[in-house]
Amino acid sequence: MHLDDLDTPALLIDEPRMTRAIARMQSHIDALGVRLRPHVKTSKCVDVALRQRAAGGCGITVSTLKEAEEFFAAGFDDIVYAVGIAPQRLPQAFALMRRGCALQIVVDSLAAAERVAAAARHEALAPRVLIEVDVDGHRAGVPPESPLLLDIARTLHAAGALAGVMTHCGASYECRDQAALVAMAEQERSRCVRAAERLRAAGLPCEVVSVGSTPTAHAARSLPGVTEVRAGVYVFYDLVMAGIGVCAPEDIALSVLTTVIGHQPAKGWVLVDAGWMAMSRDRGTLSQPHDQGYGAVCDEAGALLPGWIVAQANQEHGIVEHRDGAAAAGDVVARFPIGMRLRVLPNHACATAAQHARYAVVEGDAVRHLWPRFGGW
Amino acid sequence: MHLDDLDTPALLIDEPRMTRAIARMQSHIDALGVRLRPHVKTSKCVDVALRQRAAGGCGITVSTLKEAEEFFAAGFDDIVYAVGIAPQRLPQAFALMRRGCALQIVVDSLAAAERVAAAARHEALAPRVLIEVDVDGHRAGVPPESPLLLDIARTLHAAGALAGVMTHCGASYECRDQAALVAMAEQERSRCVRAAERLRAAGLPCEVVSVGSTPTAHAARSLPGVTEVRAGVYVFYDLVMAGIGVCAPEDIALSVLTTVIGHQPAKGWVLVDAGWMAMSRDRGTLSQPHDQGYGAVCDEAGALLPGWIVAQANQEHGIVEHRDGAAAAGDVVARFPIGMRLRVLPNHACATAAQHARYAVVEGDAVRHLWPRFGGW
Repeated sequence: MHLDDLDTPALLIDEPRMTRAIARMQSHIDALGVRLRPHVKTSKCVDVALRQRAAGGCGITVSTLKEAEEFFAAGFDDIVYAVGIAPQRLPQAFALMRRGCALQIVVDSLAAAERVAAAARHEALAPRVLIEVDVDGHRAGVPPESPLLLDIARTLHAAGALAGVMTHCGASYECRDQAALVAMAEQERSRCVRAAERLRAAGLPCEVVSVGSTPTAHAARSLPGVTEVRAGVYVFYDLVMAGIGVCAPEDIALSVLTTVIGHQPAKGWVLVDAGWMAMSRDRGTLSQPHDQGYGAVCDEAGALLPGWIVAQANQEHGIVEHRDGAAAAGDVVARFPIGMRLRVLPNHACATAAQHARYAVVEGDAVRHLWPRFGGW
Repeated sequence: MHLDDLDTPALLIDEPRMTRAIARMQSHIDALGVRLRPHVKTSKCVDVALRQRAAGGCGITVSTLKEAEEFFAAGFDDIVYAVGIAPQRLPQAFALMRRGCALQIVVDSLAAAERVAAAARHEALAPRVLIEVDVDGHRAGVPPESPLLLDIARTLHAAGALAGVMTHCGASYECRDQAALVAMAEQERSRCVRAAERLRAAGLPCEVVSVGSTPTAHAARSLPGVTEVRAGVYVFYDLVMAGIGVCAPEDIALSVLTTVIGHQPAKGWVLVDAGWMAMSRDRGTLSQPHDQGYGAVCDEAGALLPGWIVAQANQEHGIVEHRDGAAAAGDVVARFPIGMRLRVLPNHACATAAQHARYAVVEGDAVRHLWPRFGGW
């Protein structure tokens, strides 16, 4: 099968780029002497996760119980569900555990810990629970020095359910240089390890110390006290990661194949059939120094066309413009004729991939595989 | 089935609100003496389109050929595909026509018209083609006074393929008061009708004069020269439409049911399990006077909680805040306990619905129907 055989818009994985990305992260985390637990929310694709496992990944991370169920059915039985569990979802999680899935769940409040402990006693099950630690004020978690940390830990331990601590350093996405990333990685590590030390000092177990985000995972220089690193978007990279300096635009493995369907020559606009339905509404580069609109435009072979971005998006229309305006665009009708195909690199791989049900895995202009991905909850 | 039986996040349609919305638009367009052709890209749901047809809708509008195929299979055989067609997609469109679908396609360039005319001759088929007219400088289309309009029309007519003209007044989304909306509706009508008159003056046929957007459809006071109105989002409404003044927030039929999973009490944050995966990344109210974040928060029964919005969103986490900050939020742990359920009204119904595979159609706390929706291309 050939690129020409695909209808547009179509979601592409550049297979050599993905292979390099997987190897790069795995070798870095291997060298630090800890386990890498890939976050499969980015791909939601068993075939991609199998590549990560073959490269050395230990277990997976998920963002929904639907992912846990789908990947468990595909043979992945060591899973961290890294979002604080809604109490109503406990029966579903417990059912997975009873079927043999080593599923770890997450809480960050006494109320949730009490619900888990009560359910564990009621069902005579000892779930493995991680306490989420807040290392950056970014989202969820309890501060490592908080008295609440020990209250939650004791509540879980009394039910035989305390497995350890975990964190996600979302603030790393706001770093703008390598020194800041290295410092943020050390902040993530030291604060999460501090939480673990407080549990142990109180006589509580803390087997797992799980940290991670793609930027901090790449930036970490040493990880004493950490048992595993979770990271997701590194498998494809994206323009947000390139904007942070984690990768080059040429490393991005994910793109959307699109077709030119019209022009507004006086404005220098090229209309394509990749709108927000194909790209997502993610504008993650808006707050970065180099705003990429809804994506950076490449030729059909994947070579960047510097300056060209999807500047606007409607549901099924993208408007490609040169970032320097109509004068810089030149004769768009001649340069981008009707029917021409382009690739667009996404701001945020997780969001763009979520708009599609299938990956076309390409090497050059050959389509090597068609891999399904799932959605939903 | 009851609301409590749904796992979260879940996409809800408030059935009485949808029924009122469908009746409101239908009676308005009926009173203007033209046909209403609902745009089914909003719902991508056969059951919703059947309600629109039962209320008096004539045919449907689609944004992808996948929609055309799905709805044709469900018995809808009068379809306008309202996005300029990529030449590579012509065989797929022609196959639908051969199977008996009265499918109208759209072009806005001589190059595309020539490709359609050549394909029509080659396949001995007379497709019905609409020329897209630019009435607002917003996106696609040829200006009504442009010489190109007649060149395209003659090219299509020579192949027996000229059905008429169409436009979409996307600039109506930037209107901020009723007077501006009424003026924009008249601009859309008059410029599209002007294009039709130019075709007829040149001795060319122009059976169809198709206009539409939800804001201009509601604002139109009379539509001489127009044969049909296309509109989509009115079926559910959303916060962007409420911000324009087209509806009240209490008219919005679409929402996402979500569960409280955590808090950051000092910040006044409530964490819920509806992140951008459930809401979409659409920030359509960002440019409006009243920014609604990623959605406006209601109680489980659907009553608005004034001031509360989903201020931030990660993939599976939403952060609910009071728009006046932590002091106004008060004791969020007491007010929004772990496990509590809320509904969130979306910025943009088309984008939020696209994140889900199913609608739960509710009346009060009863789930009346579970309706599938599809995605893809």
